[in-house]
This record gives sequence, C-alpha cells and structure tokens, in this order.
Amino acid sequence: MNKVTIVGSGNWGSVAAKLIASNAIKLSNFHDEVRMWVFEETLPSGEKLTDVINKTNENVKYLPGVKLGKNVVADPNLERAVKDANMLVFVSPHQFMEGICKRLVGKIRTDAEGISLVKGMEVKKEGPCLISTLISNQLRINCSVLMGANIANEIAMENFSEATVGYRQNKEAAEKWVQLFNTPYFNVTSVEDVEGVEMCGTLKNIVAVAAGFIDGLEMGNNTKAAIMRIGLKEMIAFSKLLFPSVKDSTFFESCGIADLITTCMGGRNRKVAEAYAKNRGKRSFDELEAEMLKGQKLQGVLTVKEVYEVLTARGWVEMFPLITAVYKISSGLLPPSAIVEFSSNSHNRIQSRL
Amino acid sequence: MNKVTIVGSGNWGSVAAKLIASNAIKLSNFHDEVRMWVFEETLPSGEKLTDVINKTNENVKYLPGVKLGKNVVADPNLERAVKDANMLVFVSPHQFMEGICKRLVGKIRTDAEGISLVKGMEVKKEGPCLISTLISNQLRINCSVLMGANIANEIAMENFSEATVGYRQNKEAAEKWVQLFNTPYFNVTSVEDVEGVEMCGTLKNIVAVAAGFIDGLEMGNNTKAAIMRIGLKEMIAFSKLLFPSVKDSTFFESCGIADLITTCMGGRNRKVAEAYAKNRGKRSFDELEAEMLKGQKLQGVLTVKEVYEVLTARGWVEMFPLITAVYKISSGLLPPSAIVEFSSNSHNRIQSRL
Repeated sequence: MNKVTIVGSGNWGSVAAKLIASNAIKLSNFHDEVRMWVFEETLPSGEKLTDVINKTNENVKYLPGVKLGKNVVADPNLERAVKDANMLVFVSPHQFMEGICKRLVGKIRTDAEGISLVKGMEVKKEGPCLISTLISNQLRINCSVLMGANIANEIAMENFSEATVGYRQNKEAAEKWVQLFNTPYFNVTSVEDVEGVEMCGTLKNIVAVAAGFIDGLEMGNNTKAAIMRIGLKEMIAFSKLLFPSVKDSTFFESCGIADLITTCMGGRNRKVAEAYAKNRGKRSFDELEAEMLKGQKLQGVLTVKEVYEVLTARGWVEMFPLITAVYKISSGLLPPSAIVEFSSNSHNRIQSRL
Repeated sequence: MNKVTIVGSGNWGSVAAKLIASNAIKLSNFHDEVRMWVFEETLPSGEKLTDVINKTNENVKYLPGVKLGKNVVADPNLERAVKDANMLVFVSPHQFMEGICKRLVGKIRTDAEGISLVKGMEVKKEGPCLISTLISNQLRINCSVLMGANIANEIAMENFSEATVGYRQNKEAAEKWVQLFNTPYFNVTSVEDVEGVEMCGTLKNIVAVAAGFIDGLEMGNNTKAAIMRIGLKEMIAFSKLLFPSVKDSTFFESCGIADLITTCMGGRNRKVAEAYAKNRGKRSFDELEAEMLKGQKLQGVLTVKEVYEVLTARGWVEMFPLITAVYKISSGLLPPSAIVEFSSNSHNRIQSRL
C-alpha cells in the first residue's frame, strides 16, 4: 500500500493535493489518506490554517473555493507528516527546499520515492543545482519531477491540461506517479529525462521575459513567435550542453512547448517585462517588481543572471544571443529594443551551432 | 546572372517582391530587375493596376503604403514575365496554381528553379498533392518551398521575423533562395525537408481551428497550450506517415512551432472558430464565413475535411483524435466542447503511438 505526503500547501500544492486525493481514494494500491504538510499560519479570524483546512476541506488562504477532498489531512508538523509516507511530493517555494531537505534527513522512510513540482532551480557557476538532485543527494532517495503547462487555478477548475513526469531510470516509480496525478482533465505522461523536464521549468521564464519585451514594444505576433522559437532552441541547446542525456523530444512534451506557450501568453514574467519595455527601461525591474509583485523578485530575471554567469564562466556567451540579450536588457545594459537586434547580427553563425 | 520572376502579386506576393528586390539590387550575382506577374485589374480610378505599380512602386490594392523597390516591374502577361527568369517564385492562391502551371508548360527556361510560398495544398484520397510536387511534375523543374511565421503586413513594416526554406536535395539552389529572401529583419534558414516544411504550412490551420474553439469556450491558456501541443504532435505524426523522410527537427523551425503559435494567436482560422464555439455551434461555419470572410472559405475547415478523408481511407482515424474532433465539430457532428473531451478517452492509447 502506497502512502502519499505532500510537502507544501501553497496554490499549486493545494491543487496537487486535490488531484492526488481524487486518485488515492479510488486506487486500491494507495492509502486513502493523503497527508499535506502545511506551514502553520494564524488566519485573521484567529483560527489556525491547518484546523480550517481539516474542518472545511479547503485551503481558504491559497486556494479558496475549491474542495481538496475529505481524505486530505493538513499537518503542521513536517517530521510527523512525512514519517509513514513512501511517496513524497515536494511543492514548496524553491528557496525553502534546502532547509526542508536538511530537516528531513533521517526522518523519512528509506524506501521513499520523491517527486519535485518545484520550478526554479539555482544555477551556480559550477553548474545548475537541480531541485531533484538536491532532494536525491540530501535524502538519498530517487527523485522524479513533474512539470507542464500548469496554471494552478485553471486546473483547480478542472479545465483540461497536461503535464510531464521526468524520471531517472526508475520507470516503475514514474508509472506510479503518473497513476497518482493523472485524471480525465489532467493528462500526465512520463519521459526518462529528469534533467530535460526540470530545465524546461526554469528556462521558460527567461523566454517569457523576452516575449514580454516584444509585447511592450508592440512588435506583433510574428516577432513574438520568432523570439519564442529562438528561445526554445536556446533552452534545448543550453540543457544539452549541461546534461548531454537531455532529449530533443522532451521539448515536444507539455513541460516544453506547452508550458512555454502558456508562460509567454500569460504569466507575471511576461507581464512585468512588458511594463519594463513600455517604459523603455526608464523604470527599473526593482521598481516594477515592488509595484506589480509586492516586492517579490521576478523568477526570469533571477534565473537569467544565474544562467549568464554559467555562459561567461564556460565561454558560451556567443552561442546564446537571446539569453544574453535578456540578461543585458534586464540589467539595464541595453535598451529593450535590443531583444530583436541581436538576431540580425549573429543569426546565421548561431543557427549553425545550435 | 540570376533573374527572378514572382508569379503572383497579392498581399504576401507583394511583400516577397519587396524582400527580393532589396537583395537583387545589392547582390552581384542577381539581375537588378525583379519581374512580378500581376493578374491585371482595373482600379476604381480607371487605371490599370500594373501601370500604377510601375508608376508608384506600390501595390496600391494589396499592399498600400509600402514601397516595393524601383527595380520591381509589374507585368500583366504571365508568359512574358517568366520567359527570361531562372528563378521562379510562386505565390498565387492555391486554387489557381494548377491553371498557372498548365499555362507555363514549355514557356519557362529549362534550367529554371522554383520556390513555392503557397500555403494550402490539396489533400486527396490517394494522398496529398503538395504544391511543390505539382510545380515539379508539371513544369519539370526542381521546386523548394518557403514557409514560416509570416504575417505579410508585419514583415512589410520590417518587424523582425523568420522563415524556413525546405528543399529537396539541391542544397545549392536552397542557398540561393536563402540569399535572395534573407534580410536583417527577415531571417531565413534552410532544411532538407521540402515535404515537412510544406505540411507545416497546411496542417497548422487545423490546429488553429481547435485553438479557436478553446478561445470561444473560454477555457484558458493552459488548455489552449495543451491543444496546440497535441495538434503539433498530430501534425508531425501525420506528416511522417505520409512522407517517412520528414524530420522531427523541422517542427522546431519557423515553419513549425513559430508559425503554429502565430496562427493560433491571431489569424482568421482561429477567429472564425472562436465565433463558432461562442455560438455553441448554433451558427454554421458557412454562415460565419459569409459574415466574417465575405464568403471566402476557411482554410482550416477545408483542409481538415481533406485530411479526415485520408484518415478514414487509410484506417488512421484512431491515431488522430484532435484532427478527428476538429473535423466532427466543424461538420456539426459534435459540439465545440468535444475538442477537449476526446482526450480524456483516448489520451494514453494515442500517446504511446505518436
């Protein structure tokens, strides 16, 4: 009997709980109960968030109006929440993942399998630290990832969408994850390419910033589609340089083109970048983030700085004109219009290398 | 010395003339003069269209406000226009292509090379008749194609975009076409996959109809991205079944994902399909076409009928749930909401075959 615990309970974590709970109760090889670790908060009413979730089956703070399923149990104690589970779903903000892993060392079942839904790894000079690798290394468990064109609120409304499970060797574990997440309105497929799937989830935000610049400059759908395509090619090339096992076909999955399309159409990376270009770079990203994101930092802008560091450290800058342009524009080194100018200079040389 | 004639002078043909003229005048291996065959019309002013084009360097009817270049010569006589050219650019509406080819038999240079910019081939039971094949067979010349995310008016404004030349074996000819079309704002690359590139240009319209249904049903970006992805996978699968030489990598080019994105974001296939779904199928496509397209037929609806005939004739229906759903919805056999329902039934089975 498989027992599932969800580590995290934000917007996406709550939707994951709803998907998983609907399957756990139906499938005979899963315990009905799905435990969800909730970082405890006191609500304005004075009640504890976990108490309200357990009473109403709703995460009133992060996914109001949606029933999670009666078999979801909110637990404010991380160690207690994970101790009986052999399937751990990680879905916390990525800056908390290192701390969470440290707390869990020695507290989980030795036969546990992990899956990460966390988007946004850390890219360091010595290479990117994938969240799935962090989990694997710290907890000594196998860890898959699930990524895709997944706007949490749209899935909560049961609008049709898809996702991709990326796994490393253990196909049996991947099939269990697919079984656990797949519903008639949420179609999940698996590919043996954990790095490729996880890289998609991070790098797409850089392309979304580029797409936002095009929107702000009002250059039209043609140009935007061209920039998205060039961005996708650079995503593939960068992923393959870092991880030679990454497969082209992964980018045809939901985690690839579908997530890229969603992120470049809606999404806050696109939106803030659009505002930046509309202001012709006269208002900084810091200022716009403070105004539009209540001071949160934009994922794409953070990621592109880290990726650019890798490019310079390894001498790859010339091969990635779009990523380089996004970096230089978002740092104020170039005007937003540079997003298309790079191409006319370097297109043919680059094209032949990618 | 290469001599170019453009067979066609509509909106896209005129933009092609502008691109080509700007290069022909600069490149030493091309004659400056670019001849453009114009189907003669008398304008409301009483003047002949060709006379006005030659006087003003503007196609006042199909691309008003844009200078084509002084080296473009409009010619109302098809046979005279082509007789000296060794590079023939075909850019007429596809329903006229068979007639044009018949008129040109024996009238062109035997060493001529052709390129087709015509989107929308005819798919017959015995297989699709690609326009490049029609040209090759009737005129006994080699014929490449040029496709991409190319909204004519955006390129006329010199907004950055890209295109793909698909060629058959003759790489030297392809490079000459790239040289002739490529500009700083219009980046052209070539791939040895004439069928793949041409199939992209036609099949994308079917996916755009599906995307329009999603827009009309207001299902959000997630679902739309998922449908576009499934559509792309079916485009690839159908192309490869018909032409085993088609390459996956072609779909990462401008003719593939970029054109698909542009067509599913803007474009009239998407727009009319959106209106159809908004009306819950209560107003027929015929009625909407009459109202929104002045009676012209929607390319995607015509193409999906032809493709569906191929699917039934060859026993492939089960493998193409999205194309099948678009066919059945646009024929009134299923409601627009069926566009997502197909997936929940057949996803996993299909997925493994694609």
